[in-house]
Amino acid sequence: MKVSELGEDGLIKLLTRDLKQQIRVVCGPGDDCAVVKVGRQLQFLKTDCVVEQVHFLASHDPQAVGWKALCRSLSDIAAMGGVPHDALVSLAVPLDTEVKWLRRLYFGLGRAARKYRVNLVGGETSRSPGPIFISVFLTGAPARPNQYITRAGGRARDLLFVTGRLGGSLSGHHLSFQPRLEEAAWLVRHFQIHAMMDLSDGLAADLPRMAKASELGFRLDYEKIPLNRGASLTQGLQDGEDYELLFAVSPRTASKLVAAWPNKFPRVSLTAIGRFSEHDSQNLPGEGWQHFADR
Amino acid sequence: MKVSELGEDGLIKLLTRDLKQQIRVVCGPGDDCAVVKVGRQLQFLKTDCVVEQVHFLASHDPQAVGWKALCRSLSDIAAMGGVPHDALVSLAVPLDTEVKWLRRLYFGLGRAARKYRVNLVGGETSRSPGPIFISVFLTGAPARPNQYITRAGGRARDLLFVTGRLGGSLSGHHLSFQPRLEEAAWLVRHFQIHAMMDLSDGLAADLPRMAKASELGFRLDYEKIPLNRGASLTQGLQDGEDYELLFAVSPRTASKLVAAWPNKFPRVSLTAIGRFSEHDSQNLPGEGWQHFADR
Repeated sequence: MKVSELGEDGLIKLLTRDLKQQIRVVCGPGDDCAVVKVGRQLQFLKTDCVVEQVHFLASHDPQAVGWKALCRSLSDIAAMGGVPHDALVSLAVPLDTEVKWLRRLYFGLGRAARKYRVNLVGGETSRSPGPIFISVFLTGAPARPNQYITRAGGRARDLLFVTGRLGGSLSGHHLSFQPRLEEAAWLVRHFQIHAMMDLSDGLAADLPRMAKASELGFRLDYEKIPLNRGASLTQGLQDGEDYELLFAVSPRTASKLVAAWPNKFPRVSLTAIGRFSEHDSQNLPGEGWQHFADR
Repeated sequence: MKVSELGEDGLIKLLTRDLKQQIRVVCGPGDDCAVVKVGRQLQFLKTDCVVEQVHFLASHDPQAVGWKALCRSLSDIAAMGGVPHDALVSLAVPLDTEVKWLRRLYFGLGRAARKYRVNLVGGETSRSPGPIFISVFLTGAPARPNQYITRAGGRARDLLFVTGRLGGSLSGHHLSFQPRLEEAAWLVRHFQIHAMMDLSDGLAADLPRMAKASELGFRLDYEKIPLNRGASLTQGLQDGEDYELLFAVSPRTASKLVAAWPNKFPRVSLTAIGRFSEHDSQNLPGEGWQHFADR
């Protein structure tokens, strides 16, 4: 069987099912980050890569590529309710890559690192026989001591919220998005968040994952899905790389949250788009961004 | 300027020189691992990648490739005097990759993880338009509390030691080597090790790096360099991927160490191959394995 036939979720499940975990591992493969214990503290661990021709093109500004490479992992740390600490960068580039290109890439990485207070503590460079690969590794810690938010804690009747607007990311947003670190930290410090993840593969792919992890169904209110200018509902559901937060809270928490949000984040929208239920999920059109779909 | 003209050391220096480090960073880019503080504890961070056509071929057993991918980073944790903790794997593979190939790759990763007590806590898969790319991220902690060994602590008149034998790694050793974790942990727990690194780019490239970091010269005794069967002196100096330890100790420590080693590690040789000096270094033939040399 080929990777393209199995799909990403199936592949990860297959590859990781036989891994034995030691007791220090609090949360293993399958969520936005792994969570481990270092001494008495919880640590979040995340890795993510961007590949030329898949996540960016040679024609893109390398500074934006560097920004994206780090911010993708930052978005996952946010989604667990974490603050980022240290990052390493693993690079594979062809021999004829311009040093100027790499300096601009690092300028973008450095800009994201400064903005979100991440230490770029090291990395590694290698030769690539083809495309450029940039893999970022990131550590983090809970924004609220000893707490982390998985995809699995949703409860029936929880309201589902998304930050920002969805769809049409490929027109530019996917290279310049702002990971919702501040928003996520504020959420976990002030509210009981039952389940959370970041939207990287599109709502239609990611929401069913959160529902499955929480062993629940869901109902979406299509008319409420906040769309980016020019994006269709289909794009809002299926486009990947929104990097917004999707999370579930109780109806009681929801009303407090909706009242407090606009004062704290006047420039970022927050929208209730549906709810978890004990019933079957509705069928969503399309399946969001599939890493191994041939398109 | 192209990457191939600048070389790896120059590239890393250029890319990392403007990175601002926060106070938590104990040891930033340039050594085998980064060292940071997590609470009161020191943590080692390492990333390393293997790329198809550069570090392995499609014809190689994927299980050996997986072993190698994790053991390269393990070797760097050893070189800092660390024990490994948690690993993440970032994979980019073509759509038509056989799932069977990936399962064997993970079998190799898992075998190394079990043997060296590493938690494989997660990872990430992506599509590659060309070669397979495997990036491993690894955390670790000091084998001796609060201590880590850099390349920079060497002193004039220190004796230089290598574990095992050098040269000819491409005939198979590079896919099946054993990272010197146990040896390194024993060394730092029982002896004052001034400087240490692992030999990944060949003695002729790596020893000058350690000497430069320690601001010293060196003298090698060519006749003493322990060679693998069939390897020439040139190969012993220039071949990469030995993954043996190179370290510096005082003459006084050296005699105790030489007496104690054979009882502890009867199957691994330990050889004094030269010493640090205040004078200029001798010129070594060749420059070891250059990541960006076109060969």
